[in-house]
Amino acid sequence: MFRKSFLFFACAVLLSACCSSGDGYRIKDGVIVFDEPAPANGQEDMLLFAADPIDTVRTGFIGLGMRGPDAVRRFTYIDGAKVVALCDLEADRVAKSQEILAGRGKPAAAEYSGEDGWKQLCERDDIDLVYICTNWQTHVDMAVYAMECGKHVAVEVPAAMSVAECWRLVDTSERTRKHCMMLENCVYDFFELTCLNMAQQGLFGEVLHAEGAYIHNLEPFWDYYHDNWRLDFNQKHSGDVYATHGFGPDCQVLNIHRGDKLEYLVSMDTKSVVGLEVAKEKMGVDTFANGDQTSTLVKTRNGKTILVQHNVYTPRPYDRMYQLVGTKGFADKYPNSAFAFEPDQIADAAAEYDNLSSHSYVPREVRDSLMAKYKHPIAKEIEEKAREVGGHGGMDFIMDYRLVWCLRNGKPLDMDVYDAAEWSCLGELTAASIANGSKPVKIPDFTRGRWNKVNGLKLAE
Amino acid sequence: MFRKSFLFFACAVLLSACCSSGDGYRIKDGVIVFDEPAPANGQEDMLLFAADPIDTVRTGFIGLGMRGPDAVRRFTYIDGAKVVALCDLEADRVAKSQEILAGRGKPAAAEYSGEDGWKQLCERDDIDLVYICTNWQTHVDMAVYAMECGKHVAVEVPAAMSVAECWRLVDTSERTRKHCMMLENCVYDFFELTCLNMAQQGLFGEVLHAEGAYIHNLEPFWDYYHDNWRLDFNQKHSGDVYATHGFGPDCQVLNIHRGDKLEYLVSMDTKSVVGLEVAKEKMGVDTFANGDQTSTLVKTRNGKTILVQHNVYTPRPYDRMYQLVGTKGFADKYPNSAFAFEPDQIADAAAEYDNLSSHSYVPREVRDSLMAKYKHPIAKEIEEKAREVGGHGGMDFIMDYRLVWCLRNGKPLDMDVYDAAEWSCLGELTAASIANGSKPVKIPDFTRGRWNKVNGLKLAE
Repeated sequence: MFRKSFLFFACAVLLSACCSSGDGYRIKDGVIVFDEPAPANGQEDMLLFAADPIDTVRTGFIGLGMRGPDAVRRFTYIDGAKVVALCDLEADRVAKSQEILAGRGKPAAAEYSGEDGWKQLCERDDIDLVYICTNWQTHVDMAVYAMECGKHVAVEVPAAMSVAECWRLVDTSERTRKHCMMLENCVYDFFELTCLNMAQQGLFGEVLHAEGAYIHNLEPFWDYYHDNWRLDFNQKHSGDVYATHGFGPDCQVLNIHRGDKLEYLVSMDTKSVVGLEVAKEKMGVDTFANGDQTSTLVKTRNGKTILVQHNVYTPRPYDRMYQLVGTKGFADKYPNSAFAFEPDQIADAAAEYDNLSSHSYVPREVRDSLMAKYKHPIAKEIEEKAREVGGHGGMDFIMDYRLVWCLRNGKPLDMDVYDAAEWSCLGELTAASIANGSKPVKIPDFTRGRWNKVNGLKLAE
Repeated sequence: MFRKSFLFFACAVLLSACCSSGDGYRIKDGVIVFDEPAPANGQEDMLLFAADPIDTVRTGFIGLGMRGPDAVRRFTYIDGAKVVALCDLEADRVAKSQEILAGRGKPAAAEYSGEDGWKQLCERDDIDLVYICTNWQTHVDMAVYAMECGKHVAVEVPAAMSVAECWRLVDTSERTRKHCMMLENCVYDFFELTCLNMAQQGLFGEVLHAEGAYIHNLEPFWDYYHDNWRLDFNQKHSGDVYATHGFGPDCQVLNIHRGDKLEYLVSMDTKSVVGLEVAKEKMGVDTFANGDQTSTLVKTRNGKTILVQHNVYTPRPYDRMYQLVGTKGFADKYPNSAFAFEPDQIADAAAEYDNLSSHSYVPREVRDSLMAKYKHPIAKEIEEKAREVGGHGGMDFIMDYRLVWCLRNGKPLDMDVYDAAEWSCLGELTAASIANGSKPVKIPDFTRGRWNKVNGLKLAE
């Protein structure tokens, strides 16, 4: 009898110590671990992958609602880029983007619409790149299909909405040997790009902690999303569902999968109040899964930490946080784009101002001259045109320009498929942590052990 | 054979599922749970406790190094407070504080020094209040002894350095029916105090998330601590060892143990680089337990979250963060003391400025007039004198003044022993989370289930 009840008890404990949630993960010794699929035979990584140079980058656009039309417009300014095909569920949106081409004196593109238009576009044999600006839920099916059709892919953020979807992107890219770049524009913001350069030049010493966020009250924008897809997704999903704008620039500075790797995260959210009110009004529902504010802490192999926040509901000013805490200096973008350094780090300024101290932010003039001095090389060459063409102050144009430039010159892209997976996987990982009382979640290594093969991020020149 | 090995395996799993660390906590189902001592028979809570009014608050000061002498000075400005005794390990420090009294035309106080001076001070029968400004490590022994000697206690931050020490304060205060207030001055900072009042008036709607920090590069100050006690403590302890300045004001706004309660936390730190360098130089050691930056997320029963950070090492400007994220408004103290509100919340200003929007911070003039309008009643009555007497811009004086005023009028103190325990316990709890890969830690309920007995924080009037 003793033995029987002990066995029963032991089994119960066993279940609580390591159990499958039925959601693609197990909890082992209190840590949430997601399933990792085995690679296909002979599948090789895409680290520093470069395709053969493409003289004219013939591009097809899928999704011409909110982000697509301006991408079409920006492409008309890029040497060696050609808009070959346009696709949207709705034909009238395709027509509007045709007008953009006409207005810029460019030839009309082939038109696709309806449920299967995107497949037909992918299947064309005169396209090199498929540029996807659809709703989040369709990104991976389209990106995978495009790669299967032999096309490189650029896909809006987040590239994928689940861990399994992230693996689909990685495995498809590795198998087809096609680029899969997520269109993370914020890494090209002038401030972030300058800080990346400063960090790589050692101005902050060793960066130990970084912060990033998407804090943007979307109240004025909810009605712009086709069929309410964004609010609908948030209504059904907790977690940081839109982490990449804040997290991507941090990961670049910290050389993630280029000498360091993401180890685990913990996440916590508030209850939903404002989100629920909006959903009640617009959807007639009485539950809302996504907390009004979500905060996540991430630990790296090399002992660094990252704080990421998400809040698209409550009344507060736009804020991506973007903060770098280094052993020799500090950057804090919002609200003042401010820096502080050990005076030795900024010898020119220290010679001029005799009261510089790391206990205060540097004066505005010092900040501005440092921003000019450490402007990233890729910004220098295209900055003027970027400000002219526009798109979030120019960063969207730099992103498109770099994508096309790297493809034309047979260079590795600035962001690879592992970036897309690492930055996008936070959505489901944070939801799993939150669903389990903020338990730690092991972050998958999408490079499958090759995170130390590349030594530091280097944007192609 | 099968059964034997299964039993062995089951035992191993059992150990991993629920095991004692030998550090005063168990890990159960992946959650760290600290031991909670049973109360003594008949022990009653101290919620809203008020002692009999004390006409003249006769006070003894222990610890006259860094914080003590200015407390002595401030007390000479408070009606109905009398400095009766002074104590420090070193007699020359006592003499210096005597000079402060003489300079202010006050009678000399009794003098104590040496190892046991503080006990003799506590044992006097003409003292009502013992005011403790010693090193962290001695706070609890002194506070407990003073209460056992029938004295009320005010003790510097953090009041206690471990969970067990927090329970000692709570149990001693409940058993002896003596006040034990932690000297958390930052809750009396004009900005925090005004925000508390704004929050209680509903200006932020429901506050869902709060932030606080102690970010202060102590590099210029390490040599001021007697026998290097602070660096020594940090060298031996990971975690947020100094959380109360940031965490206390957040807990007040969120009515912790006055209708809401702290449920669990997760914590994560960076490796130590700058801290280690300092300790190598000053202590000749080659390890340093305290990470350069530590971040902690706390969840409350009512679905709120708090972010707390600690960094006393790297070069960056002083920052207590102090941020309130509400359903109708937002406050962000550093660096600009800025607010944003739904325009309906600030009707007077909205009538005057037609472009107010929660997407931007309110103009400086609106900020200033709101700060004046919502000045906390306790600041109003003493503000002018506080600025004159000084001490961190006046907040130290308001703290002392309130302490004495409440004692003289037989009112509950602004902060009770549960505040002291809740705010101080973060040190050991965060260390336990960090030591276990950021696993969640259950936060002890120091009220033993009575967290909902008081409805909202109300400072006595």
